[in-house]
Amino acid sequence: MLVVMQSHATDEQVRSVCDKIESLGLKAHPIPGAGRTAIGITGNNGAIDLGILESMPGVIECIPVTKPYKLVSLDVKTEPTIVRIPIPSGDVLIGGPHLAMVAGPCAVETEEQTLAIAEQLQPTGVHLFRGGAYKPRTSPYSFQGLGLPGLKILEKVRKLYGFGIVTEAVDNESLDLVEEYADVIQIGARNMQNFSLLKRAGRAKKPVLLKRGMSATLDEFLMAAEYILSEGNYNVMLCERGVRTFSDFSRNTLDLAVIPAVKKRSHLPILVDPSHGTGKRHKVLPMSRAAVAAGADGLLVEVHHQPDKALSDGIQSILPSEYADLLSEVRAISSLLHRHLN
Amino acid sequence: MLVVMQSHATDEQVRSVCDKIESLGLKAHPIPGAGRTAIGITGNNGAIDLGILESMPGVIECIPVTKPYKLVSLDVKTEPTIVRIPIPSGDVLIGGPHLAMVAGPCAVETEEQTLAIAEQLQPTGVHLFRGGAYKPRTSPYSFQGLGLPGLKILEKVRKLYGFGIVTEAVDNESLDLVEEYADVIQIGARNMQNFSLLKRAGRAKKPVLLKRGMSATLDEFLMAAEYILSEGNYNVMLCERGVRTFSDFSRNTLDLAVIPAVKKRSHLPILVDPSHGTGKRHKVLPMSRAAVAAGADGLLVEVHHQPDKALSDGIQSILPSEYADLLSEVRAISSLLHRHLN
Amino acid sequence: MLVVMQSHATDEQVRSVCDKIESLGLKAHPIPGAGRTAIGITGNNGAIDLGILESMPGVIECIPVTKPYKLVSLDVKTEPTIVRIPIPSGDVLIGGPHLAMVAGPCAVETEEQTLAIAEQLQPTGVHLFRGGAYKPRTSPYSFQGLGLPGLKILEKVRKLYGFGIVTEAVDNESLDLVEEYADVIQIGARNMQNFSLLKRAGRAKKPVLLKRGMSATLDEFLMAAEYILSEGNYNVMLCERGVRTFSDFSRNTLDLAVIPAVKKRSHLPILVDPSHGTGKRHKVLPMSRAAVAAGADGLLVEVHHQPDKALSDGIQSILPSEYADLLSEVRAISSLLHRHLN
Amino acid sequence: MLVVMQSHATDEQVRSVCDKIESLGLKAHPIPGAGRTAIGITGNNGAIDLGILESMPGVIECIPVTKPYKLVSLDVKTEPTIVRIPIPSGDVLIGGPHLAMVAGPCAVETEEQTLAIAEQLQPTGVHLFRGGAYKPRTSPYSFQGLGLPGLKILEKVRKLYGFGIVTEAVDNESLDLVEEYADVIQIGARNMQNFSLLKRAGRAKKPVLLKRGMSATLDEFLMAAEYILSEGNYNVMLCERGVRTFSDFSRNTLDLAVIPAVKKRSHLPILVDPSHGTGKRHKVLPMSRAAVAAGADGLLVEVHHQPDKALSDGIQSILPSEYADLLSEVRAISSLLHRHLN
Repeated sequence: MLVVMQSHATDEQVRSVCDKIESLGLKAHPIPGAGRTAIGITGNNGAIDLGILESMPGVIECIPVTKPYKLVSLDVKTEPTIVRIPIPSGDVLIGGPHLAMVAGPCAVETEEQTLAIAEQLQPTGVHLFRGGAYKPRTSPYSFQGLGLPGLKILEKVRKLYGFGIVTEAVDNESLDLVEEYADVIQIGARNMQNFSLLKRAGRAKKPVLLKRGMSATLDEFLMAAEYILSEGNYNVMLCERGVRTFSDFSRNTLDLAVIPAVKKRSHLPILVDPSHGTGKRHKVLPMSRAAVAAGADGLLVEVHHQPDKALSDGIQSILPSEYADLLSEVRAISSLLHRHLN
Repeated sequence: MLVVMQSHATDEQVRSVCDKIESLGLKAHPIPGAGRTAIGITGNNGAIDLGILESMPGVIECIPVTKPYKLVSLDVKTEPTIVRIPIPSGDVLIGGPHLAMVAGPCAVETEEQTLAIAEQLQPTGVHLFRGGAYKPRTSPYSFQGLGLPGLKILEKVRKLYGFGIVTEAVDNESLDLVEEYADVIQIGARNMQNFSLLKRAGRAKKPVLLKRGMSATLDEFLMAAEYILSEGNYNVMLCERGVRTFSDFSRNTLDLAVIPAVKKRSHLPILVDPSHGTGKRHKVLPMSRAAVAAGADGLLVEVHHQPDKALSDGIQSILPSEYADLLSEVRAISSLLHRHLN
Repeated sequence: MLVVMQSHATDEQVRSVCDKIESLGLKAHPIPGAGRTAIGITGNNGAIDLGILESMPGVIECIPVTKPYKLVSLDVKTEPTIVRIPIPSGDVLIGGPHLAMVAGPCAVETEEQTLAIAEQLQPTGVHLFRGGAYKPRTSPYSFQGLGLPGLKILEKVRKLYGFGIVTEAVDNESLDLVEEYADVIQIGARNMQNFSLLKRAGRAKKPVLLKRGMSATLDEFLMAAEYILSEGNYNVMLCERGVRTFSDFSRNTLDLAVIPAVKKRSHLPILVDPSHGTGKRHKVLPMSRAAVAAGADGLLVEVHHQPDKALSDGIQSILPSEYADLLSEVRAISSLLHRHLN
Repeated sequence: MLVVMQSHATDEQVRSVCDKIESLGLKAHPIPGAGRTAIGITGNNGAIDLGILESMPGVIECIPVTKPYKLVSLDVKTEPTIVRIPIPSGDVLIGGPHLAMVAGPCAVETEEQTLAIAEQLQPTGVHLFRGGAYKPRTSPYSFQGLGLPGLKILEKVRKLYGFGIVTEAVDNESLDLVEEYADVIQIGARNMQNFSLLKRAGRAKKPVLLKRGMSATLDEFLMAAEYILSEGNYNVMLCERGVRTFSDFSRNTLDLAVIPAVKKRSHLPILVDPSHGTGKRHKVLPMSRAAVAAGADGLLVEVHHQPDKALSDGIQSILPSEYADLLSEVRAISSLLHRHLN
């Protein structure tokens, strides 16, 4: 259910409607737009009395929302969400006209490795640094990430080079720490339907980057985001990272058509991870260009100064110098599309 | 790495080898077999000195294990694992010659509903009762399960009807409770690669039923089980519940060939869930027969006394009376294959 | 559109209705049933005048058929189709209560090889012999089959051992020859949507075995059969042989749930090919049992007396002695289901 | 097997080597390159005597080719193949630096419709016109194309507007006619493994556009092309048109990563069909940009002047005016990549 307020409705009127909704045992989600405010209602109760709300001052109409998702939907908010990430060197914006680039190693392996990569990335002009301190690995015997010491290395990267930090949380415990140390909390593909974790992320104060599950339909992907928004965190970025199909020449099948599909349904920004999405170094550049040409709001690219020595995913990592080239090609394409690349 | 002990090796010799392994900073997993004991070594260190172990009393040989999984592998244990589940009315066995049936509603909705189903199931002779207190749902607005009160209803079912209880845990917090109230801890398909949860399950004292993820390869499935075993819990049952494909006439594509595939690689029992695996009531009976004919070690079937009023998955639930028929057909087939149906 | 005749309608009345339909520029397909005759109308014209037909003597009603398939549908014919295949030693029946087994090598390689396998299969009691004279191969450099000389070898097998012959046609030219030499014309998975070939098969005088395409939905599968029936050949058997998915432990994913799905929609018999469906010898027996338990109307199994020397698919072929065991297990299961195995 | 000739080898030397190869009962495929000529050998015989060839004048070396494909491989020809299509208004080049655009309706419906679209397309500057006279349709009751009269309409388009014609052949009979009337013979996705048709296309004198099958792996795709080249027709263009996956928001999943994957293995050009590849009008523009950004050698786009009245695929067709916009965006991106758009 969605309550649409008049364009000149006062803050007080909006507040009154919200209070009324809460008094009915439901949850109100006021979503300010450029033109008007809408109020999403959640709470899984099919039988609320519309009349009460429609007659309140400032309300235009109440719209039953039939799609399974509500808060992520364009029905609720027609302008694209622009996520603002405050980092030491200013604010990074993602969404609307703003494209954002995220680069760094798959995993934080050592302080030396992480700082070396950060140092080589700084001149490229990238503002967000990625690197996993908690690594979900298929095998219990593979490198599982450094954990808290890894987060502390990322904190150092932040201080020394001014990057915003994007890093993954894998359970409630690590999410507490990631929320403290990082600028963006990443939820990985394997956890896209870890609903307990999604709810915890929804209560976090930092933006969330939600990766699409390996076999997630679009509705499931948007509903996973809906879990986060429904807990009150509206700063969510989606990320396509390839889906699992019969196709065997790439690690995953990068499903770029999800970009226009998301934009037709949701106001949330969507990024693309061409590194996991292809799993092969030589495909990262062409698929980065393709993603931006398809309308992506940003890219996550794995960069390593010594890919052949990486503890994980070296085969899909590119060198900092290759990243600089990638950035310049991507910048040219985004500029054709009248978009600003951070 | 696997250390094979002589068939007449003493307990003390086994203990000595384990101590030696631990002293090297690794983890020892003694796995007693009918004929001999083997000791699995885990710890992700490629450079341990074999000579030390091979020269110890009671040791036959040290075998490097090249497959990604170790403890779940037939290399480590050639006899099928028989999981023993102590329930009020005796012990239920699963694996080897023993097939076990699990039946009950998708979700615990109310005490009344749950007891009604249990009462109607008791005469069929089924020993294990399933029912979700924690429900992972695609939408945050769908019924999420009763939580602890749901577990207490299941406890009542256990007491009143003597059933063993199988129910799902969705995060570390719910796993603590499920471990306390239930006889088998279920890990759902969406959490098959929630490694944090798998590790917690590996430290639990109750058997674990691990469902295959929607797009999990066989190696990923076995590696997820390996996470549990590597923490010390060897009582793991696998469960095929359908994978996601292009095929659109059933909710999922039930991949029964995984049964002979698992049996060629692992000693763990594998059950089949034809309810989620097909998503349609009329397919449950034929696919139950097919699963047992293919060699499944048991079946999880959703049964509801009023499927059309079920809060979740009613469309794939069958009636208790239909379940009785299913049981009799399945019993006949398992008997042809010289297996005992509990 | 479907015209349902009264149960006591005369042949003449049926003929009159058919004549009327043809006079409207459409095609009539009278389909006799145990209780009544129905007449399917095809011709892609949305605007025929129902009134004319409904008022004709012997007609009960005219039913608009909304599913994309008509002639293959249970709406047109509620009793299962029983395909009768006249072979030297009598008639083989497939469908309804009758299960039929088909066995033989993937390819006819030499006369010696083919006769050797036929000789070893005869004592098992199988009545239908398979073997490819035309082989669709991924590579132009692989063995493409013997062609006409292969058909002549199969003719010899027919004469010497009394088997009915099932063999594949790959284009209109080979279909002419297969129709002449064989008892059943097989259309392979790769040609399931070779509509030109389907239409030619629809004009053939021999029964057709239509394999499901590697990524065919159920509707596409039934529509492919519809192409054959719409040209006048109603003796069509479907065959599940595995679909292509991400799953990597078997050559294809055998989708046995298609059996109850077909039976819910169509009167056509459906067989299963566990050899191509799994691609691994050790899976053939369990999946054969599973297929019959799921309700399959027959099995196609690859048998070779020297699998390791086979020119194609040796890895999925079983020995004649293993086939005898398979047959006895399958017979026991089909008997539990009250079905007759030829 | 591949024979590499010296860069200054004479034509006579090349001919001698070919004669020798043929005398061994094999087939020689001389492939001239900018720097040197290579001679591919096909014939499926593992035991030819290398020594004989390596000692012949003009030969540098004999290379055993281990990949399943040979003639399509970069091993045989390192420069990209540039297909030259002579059309009334000059030559269209595809491959290497040249991108080519193909546009037109899904099906030739009437002369009026086809000419109307052609007239509106001419000012956009596109040179190749597509339109199906033979339509492979899932249902036997759907519009199957006009056949020969359709080809004659396309011939008129050719004469009146100077377009080169790209149209599909569905069997040997229609291929004879398509070869006569069109400039490029299209083999559709459903016929990608219709090996009989591929061989016939290999003997045609016109270039072939081969679409990827719905569930074709990369090897199968390249091997299908190999069938055509192995019969002597080297003018083959590949075309990605989406594969079938679980993903449900688009008709198919456009697998753009196949572009860099093909380029790493083969010298053949690869085009993209974003219309079938997505099945939705609003995705055609972004995915067209993405395809070119990923390195595609051209695009096939469905254009209809009255999409809502189209007899097939109207839902994925765009208007001529939208096509003009598409062309200008695609031109800008190809120019960034230093490629010439015809």
